Formats: sequence, structure tokens, C-alpha cells
Amino acid sequence: MKKLINNVADVVKESIEGLGLAFPELLKVSLQPRYVYRADAPVKGKVAIISGGGSGHEPMHAGFVGYGMLDAACPGEVFTSPTPDQMYEAAKMVHSDKGVLFIVKNYSGDVMNFEMAADMLKSEGIDVENVIIDDDVAVENSLYTQGRRGVGTTVLAEKICGAAAEKGYELKDLVELCRKVNSYGRSMGLALTPCTVPAAGKSTFELAEEEIELGIGIHGEPGRERIKIKSANELTELLAYPIIRDLPFEKGDRVLAFVNSMGGTPDIELFIVYRALHKILEKEGIIIERKLIGRYITSLEMQGVSITLLKLDDELVKLWDAPVRTPALRWGM
Amino acid sequence: MKKLINNVADVVKESIEGLGLAFPELLKVSLQPRYVYRADAPVKGKVAIISGGGSGHEPMHAGFVGYGMLDAACPGEVFTSPTPDQMYEAAKMVHSDKGVLFIVKNYSGDVMNFEMAADMLKSEGIDVENVIIDDDVAVENSLYTQGRRGVGTTVLAEKICGAAAEKGYELKDLVELCRKVNSYGRSMGLALTPCTVPAAGKSTFELAEEEIELGIGIHGEPGRERIKIKSANELTELLAYPIIRDLPFEKGDRVLAFVNSMGGTPDIELFIVYRALHKILEKEGIIIERKLIGRYITSLEMQGVSITLLKLDDELVKLWDAPVRTPALRWGM
Repeated sequence: MKKLINNVADVVKESIEGLGLAFPELLKVSLQPRYVYRADAPVKGKVAIISGGGSGHEPMHAGFVGYGMLDAACPGEVFTSPTPDQMYEAAKMVHSDKGVLFIVKNYSGDVMNFEMAADMLKSEGIDVENVIIDDDVAVENSLYTQGRRGVGTTVLAEKICGAAAEKGYELKDLVELCRKVNSYGRSMGLALTPCTVPAAGKSTFELAEEEIELGIGIHGEPGRERIKIKSANELTELLAYPIIRDLPFEKGDRVLAFVNSMGGTPDIELFIVYRALHKILEKEGIIIERKLIGRYITSLEMQGVSITLLKLDDELVKLWDAPVRTPALRWGM
Repeated sequence: MKKLINNVADVVKESIEGLGLAFPELLKVSLQPRYVYRADAPVKGKVAIISGGGSGHEPMHAGFVGYGMLDAACPGEVFTSPTPDQMYEAAKMVHSDKGVLFIVKNYSGDVMNFEMAADMLKSEGIDVENVIIDDDVAVENSLYTQGRRGVGTTVLAEKICGAAAEKGYELKDLVELCRKVNSYGRSMGLALTPCTVPAAGKSTFELAEEEIELGIGIHGEPGRERIKIKSANELTELLAYPIIRDLPFEKGDRVLAFVNSMGGTPDIELFIVYRALHKILEKEGIIIERKLIGRYITSLEMQGVSITLLKLDDELVKLWDAPVRTPALRWGM
């Protein structure tokens, strides 16, 4: 295993320390328990939004802490759920008087631990709501999941709900909004290569010379099938159509098209996939109104791509366009 | 070779088509000859800034086309210089009445072809100046280079000169500024893994299980030496001190610290390197005033990192902070 790390046990700690040193104007870091939070938290009169999950998917979630997105992020060890005390302490640090929204990807450990944290906070009179993201159309149940896995729509939900919280949405309206984003978003990914969790020291799975995993999970969970690699145009179809048919996205629908690198994919490949997706959506009469292309929800150095389509309405477009200032997403200010 | 491509011959063409489809509000694409240019070009009363080079280093350069940075970028085939007609036609398209600055990385093919394009344009009465970036301290001559290679400082020069051009700098002042940036910037990189050029179909070089290449070039050119992998803290020292001693950067100097992924490096590793660099600079009394961390000048899917330090003065800070709106760098508007 060749990685730019010191001790395996310190990977997540040192990485978020580095993030804190790099962006002191945006965020602060708590090491015990471990969470990253807005430098200006608590923000008075605003619902606090918190997310988290296993590390190794960066920039998600700690890279999304800042104005217009998350108030705090709770990173677990690599591909391991954070513990309830992380979310509990983060919420105590960042909440003001308007309550807390937990945005939780649908993995059993995450769901359980965010629920436990919510219960602890509620018992102290703090208003907390959990919304689960489960947008991955690849499989119904998975290695660490009851139901569908939560993937790319999480990034979009965090941006959109973050903007709404800045605009003064109440907790109950944010819950409704976050559920709408989840219900409007669908994703699917594929892997060309596996990745290596530092603590394991070897690849999480193996793929043959010409083989890819279609419907890969962000922890390397098996997808729909292993197939021989095809052209980028064909592979984009194999991701796009299951997504389109699932919602379904229909002629005239407005969408945000999100093409996400699994981590190690060169940009030239990502834009070849975007080109293919653009042609598919054009053919289907689906209108790309907004796009996001790059590394946002990753699996360490895995090569591959995921596609997320989010159906848009005027409310979602307005919130998407609202200013955001985080390490990984920044515009409008 | 597993890549998200269609035909090997179409990789660059389809990728910049994808870029054009993704960012029509920022840029347009010419396929014959091949260049990417600002959607609002020519911008009246502004010097036009053009760069280019082999593809495979994305987002550099096409991802830097837009307000506050480049007017045009000329992508060659992967790791292959663009031809003079690309720069010639791009300059004809984007220049107004204030002349053209070519920012050229120091590789023999690039230097020669940008010079030929400049000569063609000058013979038509268009004012053109070439500034060469040669900031890589790893080696003095290299596989494709007389003198030092041009690497990370190129990104910073394009941002800073782009801002200055927006503010109305004349061509001669831009040349002076670009040379100052080059003289104030120093870089060095390392590779954990090689990368595969699509047309070659196999790795550009091989590294053993525990081996890294210290001083790697962005096309996989040999560096200073191959060594057994060390800790991130030690490796960061092996990059930082040759850079610091070369300029030299001295106690009290203000710098922009740029930690760049060679392409496939996970964020958690990049921030561990940033943390180590922060501690080194702190120890040396060098003040980090600005930072850039991420994938900006890459070598396809190569895992590794490069560090660039740029000495700052008030002029450079002001220009760095100025608004920019491109696919890959965007702030302040």
C-alpha cells in the first residue's frame, strides 16, 4: 500500500487537522470527539444542518462546511460510521434556537448512530429531525444497507437545504424540502478500479483486467453486475437509463445533471461521460438546467463515475444558485 | 487499459466537446483547429491571455478559460504539444486591440510551437509576447526540456495575469508581472503510481511495490531519484526544502502555498500533506497568506502530489483575490 499518510491510526485526525489549518476563515475542528464546524457557529436564528459518515468520500462531508451548506460534519474512520457522541457534541456546539437537521445517508450504522444522537439531544429539549437519503437505484439492499444506499443526492441535498436554512426556513420546512430533494434525486455509479482502505492495507475488492463493476457502492459494495468494459457512451447509457426509468424522468423535466468522479478519474474521462449524458438527455427531451461535474462524493482513489439526476423546480433552482462558501463548493460571494 | 473513453483518437475532442456542453455560459469550443475560448471573446480593451499544452493535465488549461483568467486554451493530444495553428487561430479569435500574452510551460515542443504562432501573428501586425514558466526545482534538464520544467506556478501565473488583464494592465506590464510570478514561484512533485496515456495503452513507467519517484515530471519524466516510500511528513520535507532553499524563501516571506494532486490522490492524503507543509513553513517563519489545495495540474490518474510556493507581495495578493469565473476556479462573483 502506497499512501501519503503517517500512521494508519492518524489518517482521519491529521487530515481534518490539515483541513482546519487550510481554511480557518471557514471552519474549526474538534478532535475529541471529532467534528468540523462553521467558524461562525452557532448562527443565530438559523436551523443548524449537520451531516457525517465514514471518511474516504471527501470532499463530502467536511469539505461542505461553511456558509450556505453545513454547520457541522462528523467524520468516522475511513468507510466507518461516526459514533453518536460526535453528532451529539457537534449539535450542541452549532445549534442556536431553531433546531437541528441531520442529513443521513442510508447505511445501517449511520442511520442508527444519528438516531441515537437525535434521541440524546431531544431528551435535552433540542429539536432534531433526521432525513435519510436513499437515492442509489443500483440495488435494493446492500452490504451495509436496508433499502437503497445514499449517494450523490446527498451532496445536492446539503447544498439546497443549506441555502434554505440561510434564508430562514423553519425546521419542519427544511425536513419537507430535504425529503423532496431525496424523492427527486436518483443515482448510479460504476467502478473501473477498487480502492484501498488504509487500515486494511489492501484493495476492498478485485476486478479483472477488462472488468468493471456496474452499480458500485461508495464503499466498494457489489452493484448489479460485473461486465467487460464498454465504450464511455455505452457505459453512460447503462447508468443513465436505470436512473431515468426509476423516477421516472420524463420529457420536459428540468434537471440538475451531476457527473461525479469516484476519486481517481481523470477530468478528460469525466467530460466524455458528461458529453454522453448530455446527448442522452437531449434525446429524451430532458432539460439540463444546472450541472455539477467533478469529485464530490468519492471512494478514495477509486476510478469510476457516478451520475445523479435531480428533478428541478423553481424553488430548487433558486436554492441551488444561492451563494455558498465552503472548501469544496464556492460561488456567489 | 480501462478508461471511460470511446475511441482513443477521439479522447481530447470529445472531452472538450463535453466541457463546452457543460459550460456554455463561460466558454466556446473550436474543433478545427482545436481550442477553447471565452464565450464573450474578444473582450474589448483587454490584453488576451492564451495558454495551452498537452492534454492530460486537466483542469489546466481549458478549465481556466473564463472571466479573470484565460481568454483561450489550446489543448494538444495527451502529453503532446499543441500545433502552432491552434494558438494562431485562437489568438485571431480572442484578441482585441491590446495584444496577446502567451503563457508557455517550458517544454521544448510547447516553446517552439508557441514561438512559431507568435511569429505568424506578429507578421500580421498583432502584438504578441511569450512568457516561459520554468519553476520545477527537481531537475535542470529533463526528457522534453532544456532547463527547468514548467509546472504548478503556471496555474498561479494564469490566475494572477488574468486578473491583471481584467484590470487593464498593458501587455508590457503583463509580461513583467508574469515574469515576476515565475521568478517568485518554485515547485516539486512526487509520484506514487504512474499513469496510462490512452494512445499508448500502458503505463508510462513502472514503480515497484514500495517505490516512489521523487521530483516526477507531469508527463512521468524521471525526477531526482526513486526511493522507498516514507511517511507523509518526511515526503513533504523532501519536497518543501528543495523548494524553500532554491529561491530561497526566507523567514518573514509571505507565500501562497499550493498543494496539488497529481490526479488520483484522495483528499485525505492531500490534507495530510498540507498539514505537514503548514508545520514546516511555520517552523521556518514563512507566512502562508493564501493557499490552493486540490487537483489543478494533473497527470491523468497518477497518484502523488506536488507543492508550489509562490512568494507574495501586495500586488500579487490583490490579483489573486480578484474575482475569477472559470470551470475550475471560481470566486468573488
